Amino acid sequence: MSFDPASLRFDDRGLLPVIAQDHASGEVLMLAWMNAEAVTMTLETGRVTYWSRSRQSFWIKGETSGHVQRLVEMRIDCDSDAILVLVDQTGPACHTGKRTCFYKALRDGAEVELMAPEG
Amino acid sequence: MSFDPASLRFDDRGLLPVIAQDHASGEVLMLAWMNAEAVTMTLETGRVTYWSRSRQSFWIKGETSGHVQRLVEMRIDCDSDAILVLVDQTGPACHTGKRTCFYKALRDGAEVELMAPEG
Repeated sequence: MSFDPASLRFDDRGLLPVIAQDHASGEVLMLAWMNAEAVTMTLETGRVTYWSRSRQSFWIKGETSGHVQRLVEMRIDCDSDAILVLVDQTGPACHTGKRTCFYKALRDGAEVELMAPEG
Repeated sequence: MSFDPASLRFDDRGLLPVIAQDHASGEVLMLAWMNAEAVTMTLETGRVTYWSRSRQSFWIKGETSGHVQRLVEMRIDCDSDAILVLVDQTGPACHTGKRTCFYKALRDGAEVELMAPEG
């Protein structure tokens, strides 16, 4: 049976959270959002495409920065309200230039930065 | 400077998405939600505690199933509106008995189940 993005459970804004994970290293790179059309665009083009909540527009990851995410595999969770995309990431995933957006760790009750921007 | 959960950016329901990742295997296990108090409880107890949107109550992961998540490290993303918890997972993470909630993959345009429930 072919997959229909409309079978996913979107929230009241028509969005669901999407985790991007590096397919080779397993590193979690970022969390962003897709609507049904962004899911379709991602599957059809192989270029991971989010919905930007701040800009209220499609966000083809890397379109301006060059830091594209090529889709390796899309996975869906048990209750179909979250997506995991395994990606081949070019350059840093984070707009700060860091490899992942999750670069702040809590250690001994304080925030610690785990990495510097990539060169 | 000590970390204050109120510094996180919660949505209009007072929640933010939380990714649980197995600290040893790197496998992404599930996505759930926390409010500020759940963040505090998780940090104070070392037991990952979510906010159940369906039950509108705290959800100490594994409290009934025994499939607890021990917090190894909490990480925060660049704009402080998503959390990654590295966990030591006892038993399967998913209520279906599967190791991860992300067991459905899209391959050749169809959903494929990647794993069976654990024994």
